[in-house]
Amino acid sequence: MLSKAQIRVLYGDTDAMGQAYYGNFFKWFEVGRTEWFRSRGTSYREVESRGHYLPVVEAQCTYKRPAFYDDILTIRTTFEFSGQARFRFEYDIMRNGDLVAQGYTVHVCVNCDRKVLKPPEYLKNLLEPVPEDDEGSSLG
Amino acid sequence: MLSKAQIRVLYGDTDAMGQAYYGNFFKWFEVGRTEWFRSRGTSYREVESRGHYLPVVEAQCTYKRPAFYDDILTIRTTFEFSGQARFRFEYDIMRNGDLVAQGYTVHVCVNCDRKVLKPPEYLKNLLEPVPEDDEGSSLG
Amino acid sequence: MLSKAQIRVLYGDTDAMGQAYYGNFFKWFEVGRTEWFRSRGTSYREVESRGHYLPVVEAQCTYKRPAFYDDILTIRTTFEFSGQARFRFEYDIMRNGDLVAQGYTVHVCVNCDRKVLKPPEYLKNLLEPVPEDDEGSSLG
Amino acid sequence: MLSKAQIRVLYGDTDAMGQAYYGNFFKWFEVGRTEWFRSRGTSYREVESRGHYLPVVEAQCTYKRPAFYDDILTIRTTFEFSGQARFRFEYDIMRNGDLVAQGYTVHVCVNCDRKVLKPPEYLKNLLEPVPEDDEGSSLG
Repeated sequence: MLSKAQIRVLYGDTDAMGQAYYGNFFKWFEVGRTEWFRSRGTSYREVESRGHYLPVVEAQCTYKRPAFYDDILTIRTTFEFSGQARFRFEYDIMRNGDLVAQGYTVHVCVNCDRKVLKPPEYLKNLLEPVPEDDEGSSLG
Repeated sequence: MLSKAQIRVLYGDTDAMGQAYYGNFFKWFEVGRTEWFRSRGTSYREVESRGHYLPVVEAQCTYKRPAFYDDILTIRTTFEFSGQARFRFEYDIMRNGDLVAQGYTVHVCVNCDRKVLKPPEYLKNLLEPVPEDDEGSSLG
Repeated sequence: MLSKAQIRVLYGDTDAMGQAYYGNFFKWFEVGRTEWFRSRGTSYREVESRGHYLPVVEAQCTYKRPAFYDDILTIRTTFEFSGQARFRFEYDIMRNGDLVAQGYTVHVCVNCDRKVLKPPEYLKNLLEPVPEDDEGSSLG
Repeated sequence: MLSKAQIRVLYGDTDAMGQAYYGNFFKWFEVGRTEWFRSRGTSYREVESRGHYLPVVEAQCTYKRPAFYDDILTIRTTFEFSGQARFRFEYDIMRNGDLVAQGYTVHVCVNCDRKVLKPPEYLKNLLEPVPEDDEGSSLG
């Protein structure tokens, strides 16, 4: 399932090269996955309120084109499982149909003591694909 | 009492105008007051480990000269009380003897439930001036 | 004239105290004044494309309530002149009708060589109040 | 060749999970490569003053352990070529001998019009291993 979010590049996001600083794209990935949770009818805040946390264990980004001040960027986020206990979000950052950057983050599920857990059932269901067929009723 | 700290301006601190983004100076103020605590022989981490927090209730900065990529900035931090329950740090950010920016932050003391406390005695002592007279032995 | 903008507090905006870091409010002030320009039918990007820049010479923020992860904050921005060559934006950051923070930024107009200019006419007009109805002649 | 740099985790670097936000490690990678240039007797500022820029085209980080407020982290940076026109920096972020995070950035060389260049000779020499003793002929 794909979710979409939009951000506008701030002055504070740019650097002296006149383009968005490479480290800021990871913040925009966060915007993307936040919106992904919301598109499933929940929120990451809600996940945390159940005592679960999803820290990032790996992050990667490939930069295709510079992003400039005041650009509107669309973050397209998809999800796929990645082994037993790992989640993987993939992100395309687009501007007017052009790919600006592409990347992923890998997450585990931990409790408030930072102990890694098997993903709880409610989370697995959340992360499982919604049938997209005729009868499909998304949670959005 | 005056403490000194140094930072180097990162590329990620600059913006498309080619100078350090105005919001980043508040991060450097934090470097300044962190170093102030250390110069008193303790640390803000230690304050928190006793269950006390010093959130910022006001912050101000006046920008005198732009700061550029790779500049080394010196943060000179001083302390003064500000009423019964408030602390005030003042900051001069210097480059080669020139004043780049100047500002202050005002703090209160709260517990972990965010309830405002009268400053605990150990904190007051910490914040009180060390006698600078002949015999003066700093805690440095 | 008042403009409104909205942001959502990211995880990356929060700190170990569990609330939005004080320095990040200045980034949200930028969101506010960016939207102010847009509400006047232009953009700060357009101002820069004419060779004018409006660096911040002073910034201040008073923190009334903590802002938390995933909060939606509304930034209400107003403008007033501040002497001959200075602009002043004022910001109220609200959550569900409650004031979270309040502050201002003061700006000058410079050219690409960082020389301070008298505000160009088009910019003055932009910053002057638009009459809001037949009789309306507010003074901003 | 290996260079070392140190940073201290600021409050502003942490997030509501009580640990350093994942996006901030990329800023620390920048600290690492800045120091790498300096360890070669030059600086990235100097590279730019010749009209060359080294934008990041890919970045990756694996997070091994959380980093906490006030931690001192050591960034160990090494360099290797990566094809004809690409540079690759590798980073180990350590705390007291433990690996906290590990990652890399890939860069190209562009001119001020963002046109990709073959790496200029002075830059290639800079990036080539310095013989570390009489017989030393590393293959870097």
